Amino acid sequence: MAAVVTFLRRLSTITPLKKGVLQRYPTCIRTMSGAVPQGVSERLWSLGKLNHVAIAVPNLENATALYRDVMGAKVSEVTPLPEHGVYTVFVELGNTKLELLHPLGEKSPIEGFLKKNAAGGIHHICIEVDNITEAVKQLTSSHIRALNPEPKIGAHGKPVVFLHPKDCNGVLLELEEA
Amino acid sequence: MAAVVTFLRRLSTITPLKKGVLQRYPTCIRTMSGAVPQGVSERLWSLGKLNHVAIAVPNLENATALYRDVMGAKVSEVTPLPEHGVYTVFVELGNTKLELLHPLGEKSPIEGFLKKNAAGGIHHICIEVDNITEAVKQLTSSHIRALNPEPKIGAHGKPVVFLHPKDCNGVLLELEEA
Repeated sequence: MAAVVTFLRRLSTITPLKKGVLQRYPTCIRTMSGAVPQGVSERLWSLGKLNHVAIAVPNLENATALYRDVMGAKVSEVTPLPEHGVYTVFVELGNTKLELLHPLGEKSPIEGFLKKNAAGGIHHICIEVDNITEAVKQLTSSHIRALNPEPKIGAHGKPVVFLHPKDCNGVLLELEEA
Repeated sequence: MAAVVTFLRRLSTITPLKKGVLQRYPTCIRTMSGAVPQGVSERLWSLGKLNHVAIAVPNLENATALYRDVMGAKVSEVTPLPEHGVYTVFVELGNTKLELLHPLGEKSPIEGFLKKNAAGGIHHICIEVDNITEAVKQLTSSHIRALNPEPKIGAHGKPVVFLHPKDCNGVLLELEEA
């Protein structure tokens, strides 16, 4: 997890992506069309469900009250995850969940984000994959950088990889093997 | 929709929320506990599923290629919505969808967002409700401001209301009656 934390902290120094910097992906496979370009092996992984939307919040009690008391959502207890440097509260939405994040300790990976976004904001989204090793292999060969190419155990006890926001339309994208 | 567009445009001038500015919500009801405080009528609306995560992108073709070709997701055709000032592409994720947004016309509501976030980024999330009129009534009485208190017809042809990000942990929250 230390590598993930280090990479997340580095995000605060990332410069904006220039228009058009994302180029074609020569090694890609269009699975939806059913056509696999010659010389390219078949896809060995699939994108799954949206696991959660993570929201960094400056005040966890108020944020929890907003969803639980004002909006009537089912929310979890506050869970401290010292190894990840965050407190978490999950908000159930039926088909997926919101993950409220608040810094824990002095070197929280969301500290920098909250300094830049005092009101809080959406920190990342997490999408499930069925084979994270194959996903990273294909993504990196398609010039989508992984912040931690070697999967780490995430907050849910499952292997996760964060993709570089500069390669994903400014979105910090977490892939979780589910 | 004009009012929504105007309000969205104004978001670029919003100053960050100070820590602790969200206070208690005296008129709230804790539906999950089953206890309804005395003198408070029962909740007349419910929060539903996450309808979509909207991502503003500087290059719609590249963003679509990332999800379709690199990640193998099923994506929609590009749909121009001139009355909303955006082009949209939907990325299916099984339980919900991503909505890629790109400016259309000179007065697009996401123009300011992309000026501030050249690489793109998550613009808003949309959660379904079963009764938008009652939702807005209760939310505003709980000091959660609606950018358009009168529901407007959104991109999916259904009534929508946008909540003020300053009252929602820095998140632009769209409620859609589904």
